[in-house]
Amino acid sequence: MNANIKSSLHDISRYITDVGHAARNASRAVGRASTSQKDKALSAIADLIIEHAETLKKANAIDLVAGRSKGLDDALLDRLELTDERIVSMAEGLRQIAALPDPVGTITDLAYRPSGIQVGKMRVPLGVIAIIYESRPNVTADAAGLCLKSGNAVILRGGSEAINSNQAIAKCIKDGLEIAGLPADVVQVIETTDRAAVGELLRLKDSVDVIIPRGGKGLIERITNESEVPVIKHLDGICHVYIDDDADQKKALSVAFNSKTQRYGTCNTMETLLVAEAVAADVLPLLAKMYADEGVEIRACEKSQLLLANNNIESVAATESDWSTEYLAPIVSVKIVQNIDAAIAHINQFSSQHTESIITENYTRSRQFLREVDSSSVMVNASTRFADGFEYGLGAEIGISTDKLHVRGPVGLEGLTSQKYIVLGDGHIRQ
Amino acid sequence: MNANIKSSLHDISRYITDVGHAARNASRAVGRASTSQKDKALSAIADLIIEHAETLKKANAIDLVAGRSKGLDDALLDRLELTDERIVSMAEGLRQIAALPDPVGTITDLAYRPSGIQVGKMRVPLGVIAIIYESRPNVTADAAGLCLKSGNAVILRGGSEAINSNQAIAKCIKDGLEIAGLPADVVQVIETTDRAAVGELLRLKDSVDVIIPRGGKGLIERITNESEVPVIKHLDGICHVYIDDDADQKKALSVAFNSKTQRYGTCNTMETLLVAEAVAADVLPLLAKMYADEGVEIRACEKSQLLLANNNIESVAATESDWSTEYLAPIVSVKIVQNIDAAIAHINQFSSQHTESIITENYTRSRQFLREVDSSSVMVNASTRFADGFEYGLGAEIGISTDKLHVRGPVGLEGLTSQKYIVLGDGHIRQ
Repeated sequence: MNANIKSSLHDISRYITDVGHAARNASRAVGRASTSQKDKALSAIADLIIEHAETLKKANAIDLVAGRSKGLDDALLDRLELTDERIVSMAEGLRQIAALPDPVGTITDLAYRPSGIQVGKMRVPLGVIAIIYESRPNVTADAAGLCLKSGNAVILRGGSEAINSNQAIAKCIKDGLEIAGLPADVVQVIETTDRAAVGELLRLKDSVDVIIPRGGKGLIERITNESEVPVIKHLDGICHVYIDDDADQKKALSVAFNSKTQRYGTCNTMETLLVAEAVAADVLPLLAKMYADEGVEIRACEKSQLLLANNNIESVAATESDWSTEYLAPIVSVKIVQNIDAAIAHINQFSSQHTESIITENYTRSRQFLREVDSSSVMVNASTRFADGFEYGLGAEIGISTDKLHVRGPVGLEGLTSQKYIVLGDGHIRQ
Repeated sequence: MNANIKSSLHDISRYITDVGHAARNASRAVGRASTSQKDKALSAIADLIIEHAETLKKANAIDLVAGRSKGLDDALLDRLELTDERIVSMAEGLRQIAALPDPVGTITDLAYRPSGIQVGKMRVPLGVIAIIYESRPNVTADAAGLCLKSGNAVILRGGSEAINSNQAIAKCIKDGLEIAGLPADVVQVIETTDRAAVGELLRLKDSVDVIIPRGGKGLIERITNESEVPVIKHLDGICHVYIDDDADQKKALSVAFNSKTQRYGTCNTMETLLVAEAVAADVLPLLAKMYADEGVEIRACEKSQLLLANNNIESVAATESDWSTEYLAPIVSVKIVQNIDAAIAHINQFSSQHTESIITENYTRSRQFLREVDSSSVMVNASTRFADGFEYGLGAEIGISTDKLHVRGPVGLEGLTSQKYIVLGDGHIRQ
């Protein structure tokens, strides 16, 4: 960021406007940068991050001390901490992004039309992306890397508790961009912790093409409501597994257990288990025993509570609100449903349209589930925990979109681009 | 629309909320409808439109009389009129949509991942689309047809001056849907001319997935600013043709003439002509003579005005505002630029990012123009007038998006869909 911009920090509105203009200008340069130039920048940034690991840790220590004295809880302090391992993994992430194919400029579907013109689509950057996120400083490097590789300029607004860590990472990024001959303004990390900066960013509809908030539901809803710039949302994950009449019992137990317990705090963790009535007595007691042994609380519908009680397994009566709660904790809600139609109806009513999986050996019902469930990831005989950019082969992700427009599910490089039409003629005119 | 909804017409907010819920319910049915069922509905609607041509014309006559007594101008009255030819063409349009391939359910990129799961993308409807448009009643049939074929439910809010025509067309659509066994609420045409209905539609973020306004810039900007629902915008077309140093003179004259004069009132008409300094003296006087003979007013930059004056061709001095004006009239602004870089800089500053074309025989510069011009259609040696859904092979279009997210350029069936991820496993769990 140049001195001119820095000097306007006392006037937040002016500062953010200047950041927006600088980003728009930089977006033209990075939009036409060659793949090798972008990859050179990514690997230079990775080198600098490793080289300056001690500097990063010192800056991070200032944030950690401030965080402790502000009374941040342990989970937040843990997310904020830059360990050696996390620094290496940040650099590794950037090298992985460099190794991904460049989506920009890819031309598809180029075909002749009856008029004689040839029409196709070219993948192009979105332009300027603003990312508003909370505590983890590694997001600064990840997000910068993904936006850079996809040919976008980016404005990063991290959590105030990570300001020193983020500025130290920003320094590595800017130096890396310059080594590759790219403008430093391709990645700008907001230099103030003033909360007014977020409000100003949301008004930059001429300079910013899309805003991606990463954080709690409250943050995302506030940004969506206030923003004049289009937003790609990553809301909560109320994910379902449905065990069908024709489920293979071993797969059902394994997938339903993994979907809930492999990690509790992630958005692709199953929160509600649906079980077909016909197999409930065979499957549910076994599965509930596995959950109970793992310390997972079961919130059961009336039928399943009765079934579990008959098998001497403890459960809590589910209330209506359980069907729309993202626990992010060792709790699972369980409902016995009549059949696949009832399961799909329940999912389409209560799901957050994130990820749902059916366990079945039945060909027709697997197709029905894939077609009729309106979620960003729909699975057959696989754990919901697979809904993730790395697992899907995107290389990295900037979030998981629960929107329907533009991009659904894990957002990788392609989600940060758009397609324009190209037309090739030989002097063709319209008759 | 059922009697229950009609009865709430005195309470606009309640009425629109009910319309939204009915659309959401209907979207599930049409989302899983088979291709043949949707095509059957389209061809039944086409038949009914032809069969009831006299009824449509009678309803239209009421609108025309009311329009004349309200003092609508001739252009508006012309757009409002349903002639026999337009009725046939509406029906023909629906049959063409029926003949297009169904995008819904198409699976692409299904590939195995190292974990053993198979990951791909399935094309799915957006859900519920609301379209807000002005006078042309044929939009009612076109928009309904495109939304239906792409598996979406649609809420149509036409201009108040076309209310009787639109309701008569709506009757044909509803009867056609029922013949094919689809819910009549798949297509709902708002039954009130109360302007409050638009405001209510813009608040339906739980029932409506996207709003597409079609009409003047004022309407579109108001809707974009007010809407809580995502909007796909079709703003103005300030389109450019750039005649490069290495342009073939014959192609340059032909394309630049066609781009301006083939039709004046369309968004893909060229408004500004850019000419490389090196060829201006060879090309511009010839071209200006052709424009002058056609009655096109020339608003020229200083250099080009001098050049034209030396050739005894009249022109007006262009002012700064000419570079950002969509004339929609026999007027062209002309600027001599130093080279392709100056042309691209001018375009990226003043263009509405709709459509731009370069005339050149130079391989490298054609590639530079295609890559660096950030517009929804970028052309080489072809008339800007080709930027159109029919010409691009989309079969039909619901508008031309000047947005960058989701869809750019002509919006056909695919633009009304999204993609979700599908994952196929055999009991796979995440380690």
